[in-house]
Amino acid sequence: MTAASAPGKVILFGEHAVVSGAPALGTAIDLRARVLVEDLPGKTEISIHGLGLRLSGFSVDSDGRVVSLGSSDEAAAAARYVSAVVKALDVRDVRITVSSEIPVASGLGSSAAIVVATLAALSHHMGIDMEVKSIAAEAHRIEKTVQGGLGSPMDTALAAYGGYIQISDGVTPLDLPQMDLVVGCTSVPHDTRAEVARVQELRSRYPEIVDPIFKAMGVISRKAVPCIKDLDLKELGRLMNINHGLLEAIGVGTRELSELVYAARGAGMALGAKLTGAGGGGCMIALPKEGMCSRAITAITQARGRAFVVRTGCNGVTVED
Amino acid sequence: MTAASAPGKVILFGEHAVVSGAPALGTAIDLRARVLVEDLPGKTEISIHGLGLRLSGFSVDSDGRVVSLGSSDEAAAAARYVSAVVKALDVRDVRITVSSEIPVASGLGSSAAIVVATLAALSHHMGIDMEVKSIAAEAHRIEKTVQGGLGSPMDTALAAYGGYIQISDGVTPLDLPQMDLVVGCTSVPHDTRAEVARVQELRSRYPEIVDPIFKAMGVISRKAVPCIKDLDLKELGRLMNINHGLLEAIGVGTRELSELVYAARGAGMALGAKLTGAGGGGCMIALPKEGMCSRAITAITQARGRAFVVRTGCNGVTVED
Repeated sequence: MTAASAPGKVILFGEHAVVSGAPALGTAIDLRARVLVEDLPGKTEISIHGLGLRLSGFSVDSDGRVVSLGSSDEAAAAARYVSAVVKALDVRDVRITVSSEIPVASGLGSSAAIVVATLAALSHHMGIDMEVKSIAAEAHRIEKTVQGGLGSPMDTALAAYGGYIQISDGVTPLDLPQMDLVVGCTSVPHDTRAEVARVQELRSRYPEIVDPIFKAMGVISRKAVPCIKDLDLKELGRLMNINHGLLEAIGVGTRELSELVYAARGAGMALGAKLTGAGGGGCMIALPKEGMCSRAITAITQARGRAFVVRTGCNGVTVED
Repeated sequence: MTAASAPGKVILFGEHAVVSGAPALGTAIDLRARVLVEDLPGKTEISIHGLGLRLSGFSVDSDGRVVSLGSSDEAAAAARYVSAVVKALDVRDVRITVSSEIPVASGLGSSAAIVVATLAALSHHMGIDMEVKSIAAEAHRIEKTVQGGLGSPMDTALAAYGGYIQISDGVTPLDLPQMDLVVGCTSVPHDTRAEVARVQELRSRYPEIVDPIFKAMGVISRKAVPCIKDLDLKELGRLMNINHGLLEAIGVGTRELSELVYAARGAGMALGAKLTGAGGGGCMIALPKEGMCSRAITAITQARGRAFVVRTGCNGVTVED
């Protein structure tokens, strides 16, 4: 029996702009996906237990296709990622049990954490010693395959390495201190593919408007690094607020996200707040003032969001026998 | 007895960026300030009747100072502008009665319309024939004096010329067709001076972030002109939405403004919506879809705004004997 876990993530700065070459900054959070692998002679079975998901079972047929045994859509989606790892490693005769604390379809890196943890657990179970770097690369390849070619290396890199990562030309792990953030989730699921396509369409329609916006986003991403290093949270909050407006400008804000952002900023509870990830739904993050976490959570909850505190810069993938 | 009237305005695009040289586009609306001048031997008296203002009387002493006779703050502020015109023209022995349909402290050009209409009525009453160009220039000078040196030429130019005006290096009247807009006012008064100062402080802190934002705003202002000319309202709405996000980015959005903007955009009622003017309170404008004016007004009202339809491109100052 082998167990592995990998963290979810939040994008701090640079979402969407990163598609056009500007740097983005993300961090691993203390919500994890856990994968347990056991021998199960004669068949391969996948069970998904997730946050707010009903318990469901899946089998994988001889072609690696998922056969659902009574499921929710979210669990079926998660099982597709697990199944892709099973197929990539050509493994049989195992029971794979996935449980995750990471809200799905929220831009918090749920699928990447599941792929990375499954890859680590299965390869270890098979006696293959994969380096973290290989796990990150292979997980990114698998995630892109499942997502029809789409997928930033950010999510899988953070699930594998943990900590903070800057993406621009390549993937650069950064050594930065931990912080507490409040995450607020709308009840609107987001669709990364649709949002990315919409922003790229806007960019091709108005390059002379969108390119300066992406340029400003890139400057913000770079400026954020020394702010986190020095824990200059006031400055970091200001950068979050500017970045949020720029994301509104390129059309990925929503009424619900805006309500949570303003709720968190209200009455001076947060130093800054912004949507995180692709937008169009999903979650926002707020940087609470010292001692203001629980009040920010209350304000977001009153604005009909689901809110919780996360710790940034958490450990990447870990394996236990 | 002489009567004159002048229109209020909305800024369509480029607010704040105009302070740094980017073009801004504004239009005169069909809400007007009206000024009546009558002979009143032996004294000078100013009465202000305004939208939601209590009837108030003011006298001007021999030094041109306003002596209030029971007032509201808003009426007292309006009287200061009238008094400045009285002083500039060195006029005595008149009763000046001001009534205005333009909400005050909302970025709708209330004070400029009052200055322009007062200047036109008083000069005509005195037998001075002032050209519109001179009225615009003198009104701008007077408004700046009252406002301690602050004041864009936009408001007084629109009150004088009417129609549409682009401001960049100079004031350029543009010949563009009329449209209907929905204006939604928050109950939060705005403070142009404070908002302008805050944005300029942000700019000096982060020039490499704010300058590209201003650049994008300038491109939007320029692109809007042919859109209005061709009444390509769909495109115009998209530009409004982008501009609103950029105004959020530079920190002049508020929770209340955002609620009205999203209320108007909701359920496809508006092609676009943005805050108008300095922000930090005041009003937003929405470009309603064909036949959707009253539904947009209902939506804004339900979001606790005060909403009304205005016609753009209206006549400038007019004088009647």
